[in-house]
Formats: sequence, structure tokens, C-alpha cells
Amino acid sequence: MTIPDLTDVHPAWLPPEAFRPIGSRRVAVLGAGALVDTVRAEVAAAQARYGGPATGPATGPSTGPATGPSTGPAGCVLALTGADLEGGGLPEAVRAVAGEAGPTGPEGYALARRDGVTVVVADAPAGLLYGLFHLVRLGEAAFAADRPVERHAPAAARRMLDHWDNVAVHPVMGQVERGYAGGSLFWRDGVLREDLTRVRAYARLLAAAGINAVAINNVNVHAAEARLLTDRLGEVAAIAAELRPYGIRVHLSVSFASPVVLGGLDTADPVREEVRRWWAAAAGRVYAAVPDFGGFVVKADSEGQPGPFAYGRSHADGAGALADALAPHGGVVHWRAFVYNHRQDWRDRSTDRARAACDHFAPLDGRFADNVILQVKHGPMDFQPREPVSPVIAAMPATKLAVEFQVTQEYTGQQRHVCYLAPMWSEILGFQPWGPDGGGRTVADVAAGGGGLVAVSNAGDDPYWTGHPLAQANLYAFGRLAWDPRLDPAAILDEWAGLTFPATAAELRGTLHALMDGSWRTYERYTAPLGVGFMVRPGHHYGPDVDGYEYTPWGTYHFADRDGVGVDRTRATGTGFTGQYPRPWREVYESAARCPDELLLFFHHVPYGHVLRSGATVIQHIYDTHFAGVEEVAEMRAHWDKLDGTGLVDPALHSRVTELLEEQRRCAEEWRDQVNAYFFRKSGVPDAHGRRIP
Amino acid sequence: MTIPDLTDVHPAWLPPEAFRPIGSRRVAVLGAGALVDTVRAEVAAAQARYGGPATGPATGPSTGPATGPSTGPAGCVLALTGADLEGGGLPEAVRAVAGEAGPTGPEGYALARRDGVTVVVADAPAGLLYGLFHLVRLGEAAFAADRPVERHAPAAARRMLDHWDNVAVHPVMGQVERGYAGGSLFWRDGVLREDLTRVRAYARLLAAAGINAVAINNVNVHAAEARLLTDRLGEVAAIAAELRPYGIRVHLSVSFASPVVLGGLDTADPVREEVRRWWAAAAGRVYAAVPDFGGFVVKADSEGQPGPFAYGRSHADGAGALADALAPHGGVVHWRAFVYNHRQDWRDRSTDRARAACDHFAPLDGRFADNVILQVKHGPMDFQPREPVSPVIAAMPATKLAVEFQVTQEYTGQQRHVCYLAPMWSEILGFQPWGPDGGGRTVADVAAGGGGLVAVSNAGDDPYWTGHPLAQANLYAFGRLAWDPRLDPAAILDEWAGLTFPATAAELRGTLHALMDGSWRTYERYTAPLGVGFMVRPGHHYGPDVDGYEYTPWGTYHFADRDGVGVDRTRATGTGFTGQYPRPWREVYESAARCPDELLLFFHHVPYGHVLRSGATVIQHIYDTHFAGVEEVAEMRAHWDKLDGTGLVDPALHSRVTELLEEQRRCAEEWRDQVNAYFFRKSGVPDAHGRRIP
Repeated sequence: MTIPDLTDVHPAWLPPEAFRPIGSRRVAVLGAGALVDTVRAEVAAAQARYGGPATGPATGPSTGPATGPSTGPAGCVLALTGADLEGGGLPEAVRAVAGEAGPTGPEGYALARRDGVTVVVADAPAGLLYGLFHLVRLGEAAFAADRPVERHAPAAARRMLDHWDNVAVHPVMGQVERGYAGGSLFWRDGVLREDLTRVRAYARLLAAAGINAVAINNVNVHAAEARLLTDRLGEVAAIAAELRPYGIRVHLSVSFASPVVLGGLDTADPVREEVRRWWAAAAGRVYAAVPDFGGFVVKADSEGQPGPFAYGRSHADGAGALADALAPHGGVVHWRAFVYNHRQDWRDRSTDRARAACDHFAPLDGRFADNVILQVKHGPMDFQPREPVSPVIAAMPATKLAVEFQVTQEYTGQQRHVCYLAPMWSEILGFQPWGPDGGGRTVADVAAGGGGLVAVSNAGDDPYWTGHPLAQANLYAFGRLAWDPRLDPAAILDEWAGLTFPATAAELRGTLHALMDGSWRTYERYTAPLGVGFMVRPGHHYGPDVDGYEYTPWGTYHFADRDGVGVDRTRATGTGFTGQYPRPWREVYESAARCPDELLLFFHHVPYGHVLRSGATVIQHIYDTHFAGVEEVAEMRAHWDKLDGTGLVDPALHSRVTELLEEQRRCAEEWRDQVNAYFFRKSGVPDAHGRRIP
Repeated sequence: MTIPDLTDVHPAWLPPEAFRPIGSRRVAVLGAGALVDTVRAEVAAAQARYGGPATGPATGPSTGPATGPSTGPAGCVLALTGADLEGGGLPEAVRAVAGEAGPTGPEGYALARRDGVTVVVADAPAGLLYGLFHLVRLGEAAFAADRPVERHAPAAARRMLDHWDNVAVHPVMGQVERGYAGGSLFWRDGVLREDLTRVRAYARLLAAAGINAVAINNVNVHAAEARLLTDRLGEVAAIAAELRPYGIRVHLSVSFASPVVLGGLDTADPVREEVRRWWAAAAGRVYAAVPDFGGFVVKADSEGQPGPFAYGRSHADGAGALADALAPHGGVVHWRAFVYNHRQDWRDRSTDRARAACDHFAPLDGRFADNVILQVKHGPMDFQPREPVSPVIAAMPATKLAVEFQVTQEYTGQQRHVCYLAPMWSEILGFQPWGPDGGGRTVADVAAGGGGLVAVSNAGDDPYWTGHPLAQANLYAFGRLAWDPRLDPAAILDEWAGLTFPATAAELRGTLHALMDGSWRTYERYTAPLGVGFMVRPGHHYGPDVDGYEYTPWGTYHFADRDGVGVDRTRATGTGFTGQYPRPWREVYESAARCPDELLLFFHHVPYGHVLRSGATVIQHIYDTHFAGVEEVAEMRAHWDKLDGTGLVDPALHSRVTELLEEQRRCAEEWRDQVNAYFFRKSGVPDAHGRRIP
């Protein structure tokens, strides 16, 4: 087990310096297992760099009392609770902490410091690995004063990133669909990369953030990618081998039509015996090559992908065929709920894409196999900067649900704009689908009790991993929120900054918070107003085009006319979408007076003179937020400029962010001017403050 | 010389049957030269098929008196006036016709029938070839009653088609930029086609329509295409060899940056001696390979193509460097006037793309070398279905101008819609830039006195050549109008139909006129209204998107707001574009009251209630024309459906046109509904007739 050490690639939140506190101490790692070996290798590499006394094998005399030499810094023990040192059992300190902590579960750990020794204990190797990264996050603080026993365990067992990577470069979508950080980490120009060191480094970063599953290929499965399930399975195994040492299981996006396109059958009907046999055999081959394979991800009957509808079967039947094939091996099916009519007639105001997932899936509640996870986008549309929470999340109590986010910034600035998404995710995760009187149950609770969280990764072969260096924080924050959805986004930002800029985090903190804390709301201000969404350029989705999706088949409309704007989704006069929510939201969203301002145009078509809860009219709100959004970007830029020449961040990173902020300013102004001009031309209402609208 | 005889490719307007009248008669071809050999080969092939007595060599006894045997049909003589039959001179009948006709010029011919002999005479071989195709057009009528001497000569010496063919398939634009008829006739997947028989057949079709020049590659010259000028010159020569037997000279689009990208110089500055030497040497190599090479086509400083502005030089200087290199060989430079700022700020209403060509080029009048032809698009924008005539055409009396049309239907239905363009071209060609008091001088006169007509071809490797089978008529009509701009579009349609459907043209005539005569105006009705243009989907330009180009850098706006629509290009309050026209148009266009309705929104921003010269308001006109346009398409469809099963057209052709008419209906409805909905939402004015606007 070699710890990847890349040159020419930014270390993100695991720079060598972050390991100094561990590497300069005597550390004992007790226990056996592959992930324990990873912990041991991490510690050894840090010690080799920072001069800590070498740690011996897990068993044997040199691992004895885990205290450092009396002249050195205090020691540290990371131990599996079940470790038996050749019959001698665990050191007393470790046993004491483990006893106080109680069971840690398969990925949890407990941490304490007493009598000059920092102790991490875990019942299972994965917990020890996460405990190690917790120590890294704590830094010197882990070795300062005594700490009482803290227990840490992930809220959800599944914390997953989906890669929309293509094997072959797609003529329109490129190597990575909706990727803004260069090419794929896995493939290059149609073949598996020869050197997968960077995949190992990626796994390490993900583990440090708490991720434990990665789907390696695009949910839109094209011809080359389909074959990963069969004759290109070796590539999956090779990637799995790089992810495995960091506790990450590989998942594969597969085509529902695989029995036809790969197996040569004349049907993919999920209830046909030969189809089920084909899937069972395919799954068997996968597990023979990748024993800890996670499972399949399926986008079926969605935007042109094949699915069970072609055979008159339900999605429960469709998912079931794949689930049954995986079940003997412990695998799962992530079955996406993103099913809607993408050939809608824009003239037809009765069809409502927002309704589609619930209409399709809620009737199937309870009919999915146990190892099916229904993967639901957080909103009813498609990763817009502002959407209500998907009603599916409250509608399927007898189904395992995973909530899907998009770390890749398809609709949130495409990693050219600073847009720290943790506040959005946190707000969604804390949303109470049954309201404040619903026992306090949140979206996070639904996910934790089901399939956990899934997100589309924003990483690629860019030297900064994520295109925009500050977008690293989104990848980190997603992992941390998947582990613990109650974490405060600002605190996660501090964690991330402390790791990423270990020497200067304290001085940078103010600037980073000024740039990032409010950046999602800033982005919301200068783009589509009041939750109406989709005013983006069709196709690439970057930059404004107010009518770009208005007369298209995609179901994404705002219905602006000279009198008003917004989509009437009420039961009283609209599409009835509000009725998909339980109380109180079905009543709150139904009422233009009670509906939260930020979602008003998602649920209601109102006159431009409609007075918001904020007191502003809709039209003046549009003008005000668009002017404000651009001003906020200018302020972000000013904050960043002040770092120039201070040496607090690497000059190359500073320069890249400066260039991107300039593009963000340009683009924000374009958004402001197009949206304001569009609504001024339509409404004829001048800005109350007389500002220039082109 | 073999006459191409393709299977699996539609014969267009040269089906074998069209040669029956010639092929079944005794015909003498008198004279020598390559094009005379072509005439002879055409006659021989027709006779071989239809049993006419074989024709002997041009000189010798068997070519004697050109009358048929007394029992056979009357004979025919095609003769060069200079032909000397071994000192015996021309037959008497031929000498008599030639004498009456006088000089025919290099491409003209005279035709008569007397004493049972049809005579075609020409001073030069090309004229004889065109005379042959005239006989084909006349059919049996050429051999019926006596005909007095008719003289035919092209209005302009240059009648050219530009191919926007790429050698390498462009990732976005494909093999043929703005091509809607399959791949290139010349290249396939980056290499010259092995079998160029179809190029020969294409040349034959073009010659029969009157074309005598073809530029073979895209004006946007990418890396692979640039090398046609140097190490891929052999491909140019191979294509030239196929076009030559039909009197067509090859031209080549070249990159202004060739001295840099091909020659390795560090500059392409057109006044630098090493640059001029490079171009001279390059031209020398071209003429060594293609002695009758026509010249270069250059798109410079336009939409990203390199040009003289980079060196602070004028376009006269830029064109001059290339012209001087070609002059010793008799070649010309077609220098495109399509120069404008394609990175305009949409907020800036003072910049006007319509002004750009005149602003750039009019000051250079008289400064271009003699062998430069300034190639001017017919309108000031870009091949919209309705534009005013470009003011450049009247602004440069001391410059050779060619007027450029677009046979390929980029903005006129992309060969999925029936849109017979001859009426538009005819209207433009007959336009009097100096008004009715300007001595009757027309656009056609300007072109004829300068560089003639150029058009972008609509042909590709499609089995029907042009995608839509009826779009063949546009290719034919362009050639015929380039030859004689005064021809009546309906008469050209009859000619085309007579050739294309020789057995059934009489029965088809009514249907074809019903479908095609008014199809351009129908297209205009259901698309962008009143000359405003560019309401198309950005990028591919097919189908409606009213705001698609409204907030873009392309300079293509309509400025619709809740009160009105249109571009103020007046001198009084607008961009001043009207001032680029001479009287009377500068006054006519300046006045909203006098401006022709169909151009109103091109020149004026008016309220929706503005009353047109037709008596309708602008908004009601928009509704009325859009409903009418769709109804007209339905009528076209009904006319075509009546042919089903009649056997009057080939079932495969009928079926293809039927499918395309269905797409035209769908698309026309989409246009109608989007345009009407857009303007209803903006104006709030209901349709006076209460029709449904979605």
C-alpha cells in the first residue's frame, strides 16, 4: 500500500502539511485488515516526512504501550476494538475509551485524549480510517488538552458520488457530461488511463471527506460505456482496486437494454426468464472480478434511455430484475426517479414536469425490492439553484430513498462562478417534509433511513481537481454533509480551509467566508428570480437566456407575459402539483400569500405588481436582486484582490481565481442585464431607483 | 470523354429521356476543342440510347450536309462558326444562321430551324455546349416548325457556385457547413473520394443550368482545407479534371493566413515582400497543376477568419496581395464583403450590423485591383428570407461586384421545407438601386457589369442531390438566373419540370406551380414578420426562437417590447443605415409611411398598433400571416397528396416529399404558435378573429 504523492496536481484538502501533527508523533496502529493497513501506511508516510518515530507492526512488542518517548510529543493510538495483541488484548487506555464509547458501528469511531495519549477506537477497519482523517482535521488540537470521549458515526450507510464520465468522448457532451474540470480521472480518449495513481489520490480525498461509494460512469450509457458490464469489466476491476484501499466501493451505470445490446437477446423485458438469467449471469461475472462491487445505477425511461415502459412493465418490475441479480452478492440498484416527458408540447399547460417523478413513482411505494434504492433529485425539476424539495421524498415511506445532489455546477455557474453549495444542501437536508409538527423529521432523516445521499461529482483531471479551486469546498462539503447532515456549512468551510491552507487558514478565514458563505444566494440573485428556474442557454446551460427553454419540449417554462410571470401549480387553478405535498406544505405552497418568496414563481403565476412577503413588488424584486447580485460579485472580487501579493495563497491559485472572478463578474452582469431588460420590456415598469436597464 | 451514367442517384434535370429528341435524330457536331468533344460525346451517348444515326467525326465526308435521310426525322447541326471542314468551310445553312446571328461571344450561341434543319452555332466551344443544353430544354419543339434566329448569351461572364464543403468533418458544422443534402460530393471523412464520377455528373447538371465556376471548399478554411493550396493541390486538380469537360473552372477558398499557417512565415501582412512572394509562388504552383484555375475565394476578418486588419491593412491591400499573385495567370480573387463585428454588445443600440459592409467597403471603392471581385451578400445581414438589397451594391461603382445568394436553404427551411427561391432572387435582381428614375439600372445590371452572380450550393451526396427533391429547382433556377436574370421564375419552373419529369410535366405543372410558385412568400409568412429576421434557433438556424438571437453578440435584434417591435435604422432617430442608400431609397426607407410593408420592421421600430400600407395593424398582420402561412402549407400538402397513386412521379420521390411536407407542416405550426404566442404575450392584443393563440 503506497500513499499517492502527486506532483503537478493540487493536494486539495490533504496537503502533506495537514499530516504534520501525526507525522511528528509516535503513533501506534493496532488491528488487522486492509483498511487498517491503509491507516498504517498513512501514518508511516507522515512519519517518514515529519520525523515521528517509526511505528512497528500491529502485533508484537514495538506496538506496546502507545506513549511516546518522554522527551517527545505525546503519543497516539488508533486501534480496532477487536484487536488482540497475541492474546495480550488491547492497552488499558484503549480499552477504557472503547468501553466508554460503546459500539461504534461498521464505520464509526470514538476519539478521546487522556493521560497524554490520543486514542481512536473503532469496531471495524473503516471506522479506524475515518478516525485517522478526523485526527487530520483536528490537527494539533487532537494532541493538546484532554478530550472526553466523542463518538462519530455516519448518519447514512451510503455516501456516494456519481461520475458522469464517458469512456469515449461524446461529440456534444465531451469526456465528462456536465463536467467543468477537464477530462475523466478514469478514461482518456476511449481507453482506461494507464496510470491510475490519481484515482488512488482521489479515493483518499473522498475518504477524508466521508464518501464510501463511487459510480464511475455516466448515467447516460452509450455504446462503449455499456460494455464496462461485460468485456470491459477489467477496467472496472482496475478502478475498484484503486478505490478499495480507501473504503470506497465501485458502482456501475448500466443500460436497461443491456440484455439486448450486450447479450444479443431480442428483449430486455424484466419479467422474462431469459432476461433475468442474463442479468444474474452478468452480475455473477462482475462479482467474480470485483468481489466488493457496490451495484448498478440505472437511468431508465429518462431522456431517451431505455427502460421498462417499452415492455409495459413498471419501474418496480424493471428495478427488480436487476436487484434480484445483485441480491445474492449483496449489491444494490440505484434506480433514478428522474422520469418525465422530455417531448412535452409547450402549448399544453396541463402537463407539469414537476409532477412527473411523484406521478410515476409514488404509486409504486412498497413494491421495490429490498436492495433497490430509489435515487431522487432533491427538487422536482433538475438541480436548479432554487427548487422546493421533491414531494417524492415524503411520498414513499415504504421505499429506500437516496437524495441526489449535484456537486458539479451545471446550473450554478459551472465552476467558473464561486457558488458554495453547502448552504443550499443544508437547507434542503434540514427541510421538514411534514412540517414543524411532523415530529421534526427532516429530508436528512429520510435519506439516512434509506439510501443516504448521492451527488454528481465535480472532479476531473484539472490540476485543481474541480476547475475552480474554491469548488473543491463543494466536493468536501458534500462528503461531510453526507456523513453528518447537521454540520454547519460555515464550520465545514472552516474545516476545509484549515486543511487546504494549513499555514494561513486563520488569516484567510475572513476572506473565504466573505466570498463563499453567501455565494449561492448571490448566484440565485443574479440568475432566474423567485424559484422560476431554467432561464439558461439551452444545451450548455451556462449564462442567461430568459426564453431559451420557454417554447421547447423540455417542460421548463416561466410563462412571462406583459402582465405577470410564473407557473401556476396550485390545485385551485393550476397543475395541482401542490397536492403532491403533505400538510402543511400543500396548503403553504397553494397560497400565494403564504408561499415563501423564494419559491413564489415556482408555484404561482402572479402580476408584476404582486407584493411579496418582503414588501417589494415582484418586478422591483427582480430589479433589486439583479443589481444586488452583481454588486455582491464585485465585493467578492474586492475581497479576493486584497489577497494579492500577501503570500497567503499560492500565486497561481490566486491568479486562477482572479480570472474566474472576472468571468463571474462579466456573466453576472450579463444575467442582470438580460433578465432586467427582458422583464422591463415585458412589464414596462421602470426601476423605482432609476438605475439603467439596457 | 465518357458521359456519366449513375445508378442510385436521381438524374435531376438531365434524365436520359430529356435527350430522346436529339438521340433519335441525325446530328452533326462541327468544330474542334475539348468542349466540342463533350458535345459530340453527349450526342453520341444519346444516339446510342435512342437509335439516332451515328455522327461521324467533325471533319470528313460523313459530316457533310447535315440533313437526315429522307425517311428519318429532320437533322440537326451544332457548329463552331470558325470550323473549317478541310478547307470546305461550313455548310450553307450554318453559314446563313451564323451570318444572321453575328458574333455570339465566348459563351453565347445562336439557334434557328429552317428547311428541316435545326442549327446551333457558336463562336467558341463553350457556346456550343450551352447550345446543346438549350436544345435539350426545347425538346421536340426544337425540331418542329421553323424557328427564326435566336441569340443567347449569358448576362454575366461569371456564374459561380460556392461549396461550403469541409475536407475533414467539422465537429459542429459537419462535412458540409450549412449543408442539408448529405456529405460532400468531393470529400468523404477527410479524403478525396476515390470515385469522382458523381462530380462529373454534377458538372454536367451545372453546365446545363449555365454555371461556369465552382469554389470547392468552405469559406471558413480550417487546417485540413488550408492545405488544398499546397500539399493537397492534387485533390484540386483531380476535381478540376472532372469539372473541365463541362466548362467549369475550379476556384479555391484560401486562408488569408496561409503564408503563416502553410508557409511558415511569421506574418501574413499583405504589403510585405516575402508575403507577396509566397502568394506568387503558391499561385504559380496552383496554375502548374490546374492551368485553367479560376481563382481564390477569401472570407477575411469575418467571424473569426484571419484578415488584413491584424496588420493594420485595408481590405483593398489584403485582396491586392492575392490578386497580384493570380493576375499573371488570369485568375481572380473573390473577396467577401461579409465583414462585421460578431462580438457586438447587445446593449449597444448604436452599432448596426446592417451598416457594416458599407462602412467597411464603400470607402475602398476604386482601390481594388482589377482582378478582385468583391462578393456581396444580397442583403445587408445574412441571407434572411426577407432583407432589403445591400446598399453596397449601389455604393461602389468603381469596383467589380458579385452578388451572392444562398441556394442552400440555411434560413429558408433547410431543404426540409418547399421554398422555391427564384421569385426572391428575381425580385432582388430586378431591384433598381437608384430607383425608377435611375435609368432602369438593376442589381442584375450591376452584377453583369462586374463579377456576376455567386451562390452557395445546396447539393451534396444525397440521392436526390439536394435533400428535398423539389430543392433541385433552386439549383437549376440559380444557374438560369445567373445566365439571364430577366427570366420569369414560373417559366424557369416549367423548364425545370419539363426536363425533370419529361413524361408527365404537363400533368404535373399545376401541382408544381401550386406548391412552389408562392412557397417563398408562404415561408416568409409563417416565420419572422415584416423583414425583422433572425428569429431562428441559434446555432443550427432551423425552426423558431423569437428571442434566440436577441441578447447575443451577433448584431441580430428585433427589440420587441410590450409596446412595439423593430429596428430603428433611420437617420432621424436610429442607426442611420437608411443613409447608406442613394435616392429614392434613402427617403423611402426613412419614412415609416413610405417604407414597403415587408421591410417595415427592418427599418423601423413601431407600435403594435401601427397601421401598415396594407391597412392592417402590425400585430394583426403578424397573426394573420402566421395563420395564413400554415394554411398555405396545408394546401401545398393537399395538392401533393392528390398525386399519390397517379404514377405521375416516382413513388419513392413522392414519398420523400410527403414526409418532408409533414415536417414542414409541423415546423410551420411551431413557427406560427411561437411567434403568435410571443407577440400576444408581449402586446396583450387579442387576435381580431378570435383564433387560438397558445
